[in-house]
Amino acid sequence: MMKNAPLIESAGTVVGKDEYAGPLGVWFDSHEADAKFGMPTWEMAEAEIQRRAVQTALDKQSVPVAEVDMIFGGDLQNQCVATTFGLKAFSRPFIGLYGACSTMAESIGLAAVMIDSGAARRAIAVTSSHFCSAERQFRFPLEYAGQRPPTAQWTVTGGGAALLARADLCKNSCAPKVRAVTFGRMFDLGITDMSNMGAAMAPAACQTICDHLADTAKRLSDFDLVVTGDLGSTGILLLRRLLSEEGHEAGEALADCGCMIYDEKDKDFGCGGSGCGCSAAVLNSVIYQKLLSGVYKDVLFVGTGALMSPLSVSQGEVIPSIAHALHLSSGG
Amino acid sequence: MMKNAPLIESAGTVVGKDEYAGPLGVWFDSHEADAKFGMPTWEMAEAEIQRRAVQTALDKQSVPVAEVDMIFGGDLQNQCVATTFGLKAFSRPFIGLYGACSTMAESIGLAAVMIDSGAARRAIAVTSSHFCSAERQFRFPLEYAGQRPPTAQWTVTGGGAALLARADLCKNSCAPKVRAVTFGRMFDLGITDMSNMGAAMAPAACQTICDHLADTAKRLSDFDLVVTGDLGSTGILLLRRLLSEEGHEAGEALADCGCMIYDEKDKDFGCGGSGCGCSAAVLNSVIYQKLLSGVYKDVLFVGTGALMSPLSVSQGEVIPSIAHALHLSSGG
Repeated sequence: MMKNAPLIESAGTVVGKDEYAGPLGVWFDSHEADAKFGMPTWEMAEAEIQRRAVQTALDKQSVPVAEVDMIFGGDLQNQCVATTFGLKAFSRPFIGLYGACSTMAESIGLAAVMIDSGAARRAIAVTSSHFCSAERQFRFPLEYAGQRPPTAQWTVTGGGAALLARADLCKNSCAPKVRAVTFGRMFDLGITDMSNMGAAMAPAACQTICDHLADTAKRLSDFDLVVTGDLGSTGILLLRRLLSEEGHEAGEALADCGCMIYDEKDKDFGCGGSGCGCSAAVLNSVIYQKLLSGVYKDVLFVGTGALMSPLSVSQGEVIPSIAHALHLSSGG
Repeated sequence: MMKNAPLIESAGTVVGKDEYAGPLGVWFDSHEADAKFGMPTWEMAEAEIQRRAVQTALDKQSVPVAEVDMIFGGDLQNQCVATTFGLKAFSRPFIGLYGACSTMAESIGLAAVMIDSGAARRAIAVTSSHFCSAERQFRFPLEYAGQRPPTAQWTVTGGGAALLARADLCKNSCAPKVRAVTFGRMFDLGITDMSNMGAAMAPAACQTICDHLADTAKRLSDFDLVVTGDLGSTGILLLRRLLSEEGHEAGEALADCGCMIYDEKDKDFGCGGSGCGCSAAVLNSVIYQKLLSGVYKDVLFVGTGALMSPLSVSQGEVIPSIAHALHLSSGG
C-alpha cells in the first residue's frame, strides 16, 4: 500500500502496423508501418520504440528529462539491449530489470515505491517487444516460415512508457494514482512447452491476485477492470477457473491485454498478443486514458512473465512464471 | 542518502575451485571443485550457486526465509535463468534485475531503498556468474580452446548474497550500514571491443563516483576503501587517470574486485576476474567481514556493468556501460 499514492502523470505508446490495425489502434500515440522504425536492425528498432515511448510521455506534459530522477526498464532481448540502446541518450539514473512480460508491472511498481519513499521525485517505467527480434531470438529465423501450434501467442511490436510523479509536482490534475503494489512470487506447475506460456503464467497470476486481495482486504468486484498481461485466450480461461477454485468469481471485469490488442479476423495471431510491449502498449493507451477520464475508477493490472530462456527449455527445464499486481485508481 | 540506514545483517558466498585457490580463498563461505556443483548443466550449477549463497546468508543469522519480504537478483545468462532457477524454491516476492556486472550494487541499492522506505522489513540481494555458462553464451564453446586477447577478463565462478534488514529487526549487532546509494547513468565512449570491457566501464565508474561525491559532499579520502567491481587491471588504471582529471586523487584506497580475486602466478587470468559473481563474492566475503570487524569504517563500493549482448556487438553497436555506488559503513 502506498502512503502517498504516486501519480501516473503521463504515458506514451508506440506500436507497429498490425497493432495499429487492431481494435485498439486509435488509442495508441504513434505507429509505424516500417518494422525497422528507420533503424538498421530489428533489435535497434525495438530500442527506438522505447526511446519514442519515453519521449512521448515526457512531451505530453512538457516535462524535461532532467526532472526525471530514475528510469526503470527492461525487455526480452538477451542482456536487455533494446532498453540499453533506447534509453542511454537520456542519461538519467537507470535501473535495468528483467521480468519477461511482467516488466511493465514490475517497473511501475518499483518506480511507485521510489516516489512514495521520497527517493525519487519523478520516475519513468518503460518496456517494449518486437515481433521480429523475439522470433529471431526465441524461435526460428522468420525466413523458415515455421508452423505455430494453436496455443502460441504473437509477440507485439510496440512499447509503452509511464511517467510517475510525486503528487505535489504532478502537472496533470487528472492523473491516476498507484494505490498498491504486490510483487509476486515465482511459481511453476511443471509446464515445459514454450508454445503454451499462457498456461505456464496463469497459476502465477492467480497466486498474485489472491495475495493482493488478501493483503489489501479487497474483492475482485471492487475493480472495474482486472486485466492480465498477457495470458492470451488459453491462459485467461485457465485463470478464470483457478480464481473460481480459490473462491473468487471473476465475472465480466476480467480481461487480458493479449486478447484485446488484435482482431482474430485480420490474421492468425494464435491465442493473442504477448511480449513486454503488449501490456505496456495496452496499459499506457486505452486503460490509462479511461482512468484519466474516469470511465474506470479502479483497475487491477496484473503483469505476467514466463521466466525461461531458449537454452533452459532446450535443457528440459520447466517454465517458472511470475506476476506482479498494481492497483490503479482514477484521479477524480 | 538513507534516512534509516538499513543494515546488512548477513552475507553468504560460494565459489569454484580457481577462486578458492586465489588470495581470498579463506574468506569465502563455501567452495566446490566440481564445476557443475552436482547439477546436470553449467547453467543450473550457476543457479545452485545463487541458492546456496542465499541459504548461507539466512543460516548465519538463523533468519527463516519467510521473514524476507523481497528478493532482488539477476545474472548474465540470457533471460537471467540462473536467478530464476536458483531462487524459485524460496517462494518470496521476486524482483528480477539486469545490470550485467553491476547487479550486486544495483540489487543492494534497491533492497536498501525498499527497507528505508518501509516497503520491506528484510530483503535479499543476490547475483552470480559461472565461467562455463558465460563462455558458452558470450564467447566460444570451451572445446575450441580459443585464444584470449591480453585485455580480456576471466569470468568468476561464484556468487554472493546480502541479507538486508531494518535496524530494529536486525539480529547482528555488528552489521554494517548502507548509508547512501547513487544509481548511475549509462555512458559510452564508443568502445566496441568485447575483450576490453574494463575500458568500456571505467568512464561510467568515474561518472558515478563523481556524482556520488558531489551529491553527498564527500571526498575519496573519506573512504578506507573505494572498490570497483570489476574493471580489471586495464580498467582500473584508466579509472585512476579519469578520476585524477576530475580532481580526485584515488591514492592507495582504490582497488578492484577483479584484481583481488585471482593470483596471476597461478594461471593466466588475463586482466583479472569479471562477471556478476566476482564483486558479489568479494564484497560479501572479505569486504563484509572487514566492515563487521571495523577494519574498514567506510567503503565506497562501485559495481560496474557492460550493457551489451553478443548480438549487439556483432551488429557493430558500441558497448554502453553503467555503474552504481554504495556507501557502506561499519556498524560500530
